[in-house]
Amino acid sequence: MSVQRWKCVCAYDGTLFDGWQSQVGGDTVQDVIEKRLQEIFHTPVRIFGSGRTDAGVHARGQVFHFDAAWRHRPEGLMAAFRGGLPATVRVKSVRAAAPDFHARFSATRKRYVYQLSLGDADPFLRPYCWSLFHSLDVTAMRAAAEVLIGRHDFRAFTALNGPEREDTVRELRRLEVVKRGRILRITSESEGFLYKMVRSLVGALVAAGQGKLSVPELRAILMSRERTARVKTAPPQGLFLEKVFY
Amino acid sequence: MSVQRWKCVCAYDGTLFDGWQSQVGGDTVQDVIEKRLQEIFHTPVRIFGSGRTDAGVHARGQVFHFDAAWRHRPEGLMAAFRGGLPATVRVKSVRAAAPDFHARFSATRKRYVYQLSLGDADPFLRPYCWSLFHSLDVTAMRAAAEVLIGRHDFRAFTALNGPEREDTVRELRRLEVVKRGRILRITSESEGFLYKMVRSLVGALVAAGQGKLSVPELRAILMSRERTARVKTAPPQGLFLEKVFY
Repeated sequence: MSVQRWKCVCAYDGTLFDGWQSQVGGDTVQDVIEKRLQEIFHTPVRIFGSGRTDAGVHARGQVFHFDAAWRHRPEGLMAAFRGGLPATVRVKSVRAAAPDFHARFSATRKRYVYQLSLGDADPFLRPYCWSLFHSLDVTAMRAAAEVLIGRHDFRAFTALNGPEREDTVRELRRLEVVKRGRILRITSESEGFLYKMVRSLVGALVAAGQGKLSVPELRAILMSRERTARVKTAPPQGLFLEKVFY
Repeated sequence: MSVQRWKCVCAYDGTLFDGWQSQVGGDTVQDVIEKRLQEIFHTPVRIFGSGRTDAGVHARGQVFHFDAAWRHRPEGLMAAFRGGLPATVRVKSVRAAAPDFHARFSATRKRYVYQLSLGDADPFLRPYCWSLFHSLDVTAMRAAAEVLIGRHDFRAFTALNGPEREDTVRELRRLEVVKRGRILRITSESEGFLYKMVRSLVGALVAAGQGKLSVPELRAILMSRERTARVKTAPPQGLFLEKVFY
């Protein structure tokens, strides 16, 4: 029975998790999945995610891989996951992958969706959005998004306090604001995002929508390559890792 | 300061509640709202809902009324609610009503929505739908709905074990199946529903969609005026009281 690489897509409600990545004393999504895999395979199995998500952030399409010898069909592995994971984590698909497939390094693009509610949200939606009690100018938000789309040094839009030499240039492929009723969804896509970059972009768009940040001001912040208090980090519960592309 | 009648619309996540209606030793939505009103008015305030919802059933538009002397604007009352209700209950609107308005007796129609998921649902949706692991024939479900729409004796579609003389004739104005991706929504409207009638109608439509109940069989069950094991009661977590009309 030979060891095979498995690619899995999962969804989770991040509300009560300390994020994706395994940590000492933490209750993380990775911990929960690895615990289940250990039950299935009777040996520790390490999984590799496409990237971390912060505490409180959700996923509809996080991807991870692992190596294990499974003698049955992938459907059986999915059923085994289903039987033993908490209701807050769901493995959506399990597929055999090439030996050189890597959930993180093979990824070519990621899509995040951020949900905003104008006014108080219904209880069903409240854990999954940022509720704002002032109206937002969607046209201004879209104009701000136009400033940010493209290849830029996004140092002003990360919570990273890394060394100056760290490469903070990224290509933002998509930053789209869609309004449906009282719900706004901001979709962003990039080959790679910096630490807390999506939530910082959302914070900037919301400031623009509230009339607190003009297009020239936003452009100046982007050029400055310096984090400013005028760009808030949007709270985690509105953010979903929607899809990872390979 | 004169006593005024107030009409409120509320939403709640019924997952952890023992239903709407106040009961001894129970944790109900009515209990939670009355507790908050007592804090606001420093005296017990009784509320009257448009009707009960069972344990586990949700609402997006439950209506209740109460009488109280509030010297400020309705917005202030809504803010007072917001400050003291659990996250699972949200008062969406507060309006002064005529003295003869009654949340239950003035209602002219109710709309319920039932959510089904084809296959396992994502964690965000799982508490709010019935997950089915076999495909459903939506055309067959719609044909079954046509049998049920209209004025009928719905005794075969209630969990009520009341006396035979009780009037179980109702007019079902709407029973509509809409499919969007892997989510099915069944909308039903009537001036009045019998006990567990909506969930029984959904059970019948699902049986029809699974090929377990033909149109002639369904018609025979309706005519029989007798509950049969072939009509299951759909589980509560998929059901939402969507709107009450006045």
